[in-house]
Amino acid sequence: MANARAAFLIIGNEVLSGRTQDRNLTTLAHALRKHGILLAEVRVVRDDHAAIVTAVTELRKTFDYLFTSGGIGPTHDDITTSAVAAAFGVEVYRHPQAEAALTEHYQAQGKEASPQRLRMADIPAGAKLVNCEVTPAPGFNLENVYVFAGVPLIFAQMVASAIPTLPAGASYASTTITVRVGESEVSDELEQVQDNFTQLELGSYPQQDQAGFYTELVIAGSEQELIAQASEQLTKLLRDRKLEFEIS
Amino acid sequence: MANARAAFLIIGNEVLSGRTQDRNLTTLAHALRKHGILLAEVRVVRDDHAAIVTAVTELRKTFDYLFTSGGIGPTHDDITTSAVAAAFGVEVYRHPQAEAALTEHYQAQGKEASPQRLRMADIPAGAKLVNCEVTPAPGFNLENVYVFAGVPLIFAQMVASAIPTLPAGASYASTTITVRVGESEVSDELEQVQDNFTQLELGSYPQQDQAGFYTELVIAGSEQELIAQASEQLTKLLRDRKLEFEIS
Repeated sequence: MANARAAFLIIGNEVLSGRTQDRNLTTLAHALRKHGILLAEVRVVRDDHAAIVTAVTELRKTFDYLFTSGGIGPTHDDITTSAVAAAFGVEVYRHPQAEAALTEHYQAQGKEASPQRLRMADIPAGAKLVNCEVTPAPGFNLENVYVFAGVPLIFAQMVASAIPTLPAGASYASTTITVRVGESEVSDELEQVQDNFTQLELGSYPQQDQAGFYTELVIAGSEQELIAQASEQLTKLLRDRKLEFEIS
Repeated sequence: MANARAAFLIIGNEVLSGRTQDRNLTTLAHALRKHGILLAEVRVVRDDHAAIVTAVTELRKTFDYLFTSGGIGPTHDDITTSAVAAAFGVEVYRHPQAEAALTEHYQAQGKEASPQRLRMADIPAGAKLVNCEVTPAPGFNLENVYVFAGVPLIFAQMVASAIPTLPAGASYASTTITVRVGESEVSDELEQVQDNFTQLELGSYPQQDQAGFYTELVIAGSEQELIAQASEQLTKLLRDRKLEFEIS
């Protein structure tokens, strides 16, 4: 059975302006990979209602799952919840359990559970809370859409909480063969092995360090045995060409 | 006049798998910002012909400019050029000047200008080369689409070569006010100033370091004088609340 396919929508002007380097893509990619779900597309959009509604609508229809990050905090530029609700054509309501948790949290700190803070208890009608130990401000799940916070530590906990609840697919594995030549030196060999193993993905990634350019050849897929066979075939071709390589 | 709006399409399985952390978004974002062009959307898609064609077609119609990275190398998984040509409905042809530069480059290294390597001289009909000093393998520009390499050093040179040729807009500026409280503590003040300065973008970014959570309040826009006024208003509100802050 083919692996389920997911998209990731990053919401925030700060990523598009280059102020903030996104760190959540890597977290989500690794978690999905391990769980056998293919991350097929990522989008980054501004804190703009129409842009979020359009992206959520397209991506949730095209892919099996959509994960989002950002825009669920207490400030005026946090508009993800209302945009997701609009994309589903449902209302936002105050979730009693989330409201109670937020109220308790702020009172325990001697702070007021102000209207701004309690806005974080608002979620779309029909959504379920996603648990997180770090914050009482919840993420939520509505049909195939998972809405998470943008702060990396909180995002990671929401990922860790939600992904295991999804049906697992065959998990991906990969082997990397590093050769200290440019990628055009080994493109024939790579293509030849790709043609022999159409179920696998062979990729070539030019890299650079202080010693110069080199190339990482990656063999990836969900069948370990095939990866081993393809790796053997490719390394034989490299040996025939007297090229040195490292496998990792 | 409103600033021109751009999109960035990152092409590559390695970014979606989490193997490679993209570094080109930051480079492009800063260059566009300085040049007064708004980066409005980013997408990351797989090395998949249909996915690239769809994204190029949508983004080049929606935005004033589209920049792409990745997939223009010499290996079988480098399919950006043919996908961009397909999105425009034009053929790919071998550009004589690019072919000559590649041939000379490889011959100077005592290497063969093999068919795989010369594939990098293929560009869509009607496209112009984008110059880069680091590599003879060209990027190209077709109408409002700019196709650049994925290797960060080469990408940065192509950005530096192409962006100055575009009409410049009013460049963005921003002021950051850092307060050592959670963002819900200052959401009222931020919203109040945003309401007074609708031409500016006020954002609130929760951060965390070893001393705990803190918040960066960012005032951004293309009018320096307004930014200064908004900053004065916001810092006065923070002082009234006896909150300490730093401006940067």
